[in-house]
Amino acid sequence: MIADFLDSIQKPTLVLNETRARRNLKRMAAKAAAQQIRFRPHFKTHQSAEIGEWFREEGISAITVSSMSMAAYFTGHGWTDILVAFPVNLREMDVIRALASRVRLGLLVESIWSVERLAAGLQTPVDIWIKIDSGMHRAGVDVEDSAAVLALAQAVLQYPQLRLRGLLTHAGQTYHAHSPEEIRRMYAGSVQAMNVLRGELEGRLGVKLEVSAGDTPGCTLCDDLGPVDEIRPGNFLFFDAMMRDLGVCAWEDVAVAVACPLVALHPHRGEGLIYGGSIHLSKEFLEADGHGFYGYAAFPTDDGWQPGDPSSRVISLSQEHGVVHLAPADFERLKVGDLLYVLPVHSCLVVDALKSYRCLNGREIATLNSCAAND
Amino acid sequence: MIADFLDSIQKPTLVLNETRARRNLKRMAAKAAAQQIRFRPHFKTHQSAEIGEWFREEGISAITVSSMSMAAYFTGHGWTDILVAFPVNLREMDVIRALASRVRLGLLVESIWSVERLAAGLQTPVDIWIKIDSGMHRAGVDVEDSAAVLALAQAVLQYPQLRLRGLLTHAGQTYHAHSPEEIRRMYAGSVQAMNVLRGELEGRLGVKLEVSAGDTPGCTLCDDLGPVDEIRPGNFLFFDAMMRDLGVCAWEDVAVAVACPLVALHPHRGEGLIYGGSIHLSKEFLEADGHGFYGYAAFPTDDGWQPGDPSSRVISLSQEHGVVHLAPADFERLKVGDLLYVLPVHSCLVVDALKSYRCLNGREIATLNSCAAND
Repeated sequence: MIADFLDSIQKPTLVLNETRARRNLKRMAAKAAAQQIRFRPHFKTHQSAEIGEWFREEGISAITVSSMSMAAYFTGHGWTDILVAFPVNLREMDVIRALASRVRLGLLVESIWSVERLAAGLQTPVDIWIKIDSGMHRAGVDVEDSAAVLALAQAVLQYPQLRLRGLLTHAGQTYHAHSPEEIRRMYAGSVQAMNVLRGELEGRLGVKLEVSAGDTPGCTLCDDLGPVDEIRPGNFLFFDAMMRDLGVCAWEDVAVAVACPLVALHPHRGEGLIYGGSIHLSKEFLEADGHGFYGYAAFPTDDGWQPGDPSSRVISLSQEHGVVHLAPADFERLKVGDLLYVLPVHSCLVVDALKSYRCLNGREIATLNSCAAND
Repeated sequence: MIADFLDSIQKPTLVLNETRARRNLKRMAAKAAAQQIRFRPHFKTHQSAEIGEWFREEGISAITVSSMSMAAYFTGHGWTDILVAFPVNLREMDVIRALASRVRLGLLVESIWSVERLAAGLQTPVDIWIKIDSGMHRAGVDVEDSAAVLALAQAVLQYPQLRLRGLLTHAGQTYHAHSPEEIRRMYAGSVQAMNVLRGELEGRLGVKLEVSAGDTPGCTLCDDLGPVDEIRPGNFLFFDAMMRDLGVCAWEDVAVAVACPLVALHPHRGEGLIYGGSIHLSKEFLEADGHGFYGYAAFPTDDGWQPGDPSSRVISLSQEHGVVHLAPADFERLKVGDLLYVLPVHSCLVVDALKSYRCLNGREIATLNSCAAND
């Protein structure tokens, strides 16, 4: 069976270990349930209606997405409580109106300007979350700037079609931490700052506010998720080399790999050349010994894959080519025409690039980006 | 008209200035024609049947692609002389056989192992090019290793279905040059080394061999293309920020930009936040002042776009978000909901990611990756 599957692979192919993904999912769902916290997983990681059903089997009914396109796709697949965790894009008012009339739609605001334009364009109610910057410095109002958050909340409260739900943050600074301990500190610090802000706002406004938080590193490593109403991790489903190198997971938790045909071997340089480039693996990189790399080499096995030597890494990428440094023992195992697996740096980007999965039994799973999924 | 077009853009959109692209095309076609060199443009840059017709209008009949998938797509659109400029992937023998029976198919080899397996799997003749490494150190046999090239050529000559066409190189080291002068030197050095090798091989084998070369930087900057039989540039059609920063083209030559909705402004940091992330712009970066960046900011105009201040650049990317540093004068021009254009680092990757073009008159052009193109 596995031999037939491997023989069928001709091009860079995203291989999914379903057992590992379901195990990762059950673990996170159980942690949230034990602490009575709503688990609103981020579906940008898998972008797949079929994989979404695995979440439904765990009792999950509320989801997070990162674009209106994804919101529309999952609406079409029966999801009815969808948060678009991206500052509202005023150029998509027609999609927002259409989805607001079909599902419980959550939107993020971070300026009064956007609140006013959103209100002017909407009759059907939507949930509004105020986007708070608790340290990542990408989007949102600074968590220390309670005056600005208060003014924004007051603006939202003027419009009955905008239901102020609470405060939302993504403490993505954890992705740049240097140790598991630093991740735990960052997560706890973010949650604490969000609750100080919530307390002040609730006192001033006389309304209850929820707190939405939760990135994969923090939610995975912290036993106590703290005083939050919901968590929104996504990457935990598959993990990847970045999460493994951060100490967030083990290789045995990583649920996706990219199978790449080996097209050349260069013994003088100890390198293999794969069909697998930046359009397949993305140019997201990690660093080791002062050099960037784009994934670790691994080898197919009867039940999935096995990492090679830690020094066997993808060291450069062109559009379709990948150059893989191979430790001598790994080099010896390979001949041109074989498959080399790559454990990718960032699984979400690889899923987006490769558009569909193959399970270890050969079954194909579509995503939003598969042409077949857009009928 | 332009106002209607801009109003219609809701999501990150690849905008194409057709006038500039056709001008870039005519210029390269004229240069090759004047020197009686076959122009075999690389279609991986545009990946579009419709844009391919612009090349046909210039009299071009031979093309280059970087995958069998692209070869199949352009075969389906009437191209009959197709070179796959990628070391032959032995796992795609069924596609190779199918296309070899329909078109004049060119393949690259760089090992005797691949030659033997290719010959064993093929009855219909194909053109064979020996891939030579003339300094890029990604793929191919070292240009100095004439003994290895000779052995490989002799292996090819054993099989009547493998027609030895010549020696091929991609001097992609020009992309890492520091000045136009260095690019010219690299191009000339590569062509010279290829001709030394050709002379030796022709003497030993008693056959005529062609030389195929030609990257965008070299072919654009060198007035004299040298003793080559064909050139294969691709990126010259659109150019991009990398080519402009290398001194290969001017901003007025860059024919693609990515229109991105502005979703937030952060005055304290002088930053805008766009809907436009690594899945749209790719994470290919350039460096300035020791920091990486992912494109330059530009503003829509009546006839296309105009670059902003040179310091206005995309400084970080997440999956869907882009953070843009904005010079004060550029910041002042913007409000949330506007479109900000990004002049991308590497146009080929952006085309692959965004899957279709919008011309300035609003017309859509499909690529291989548009679902509609795969009927």
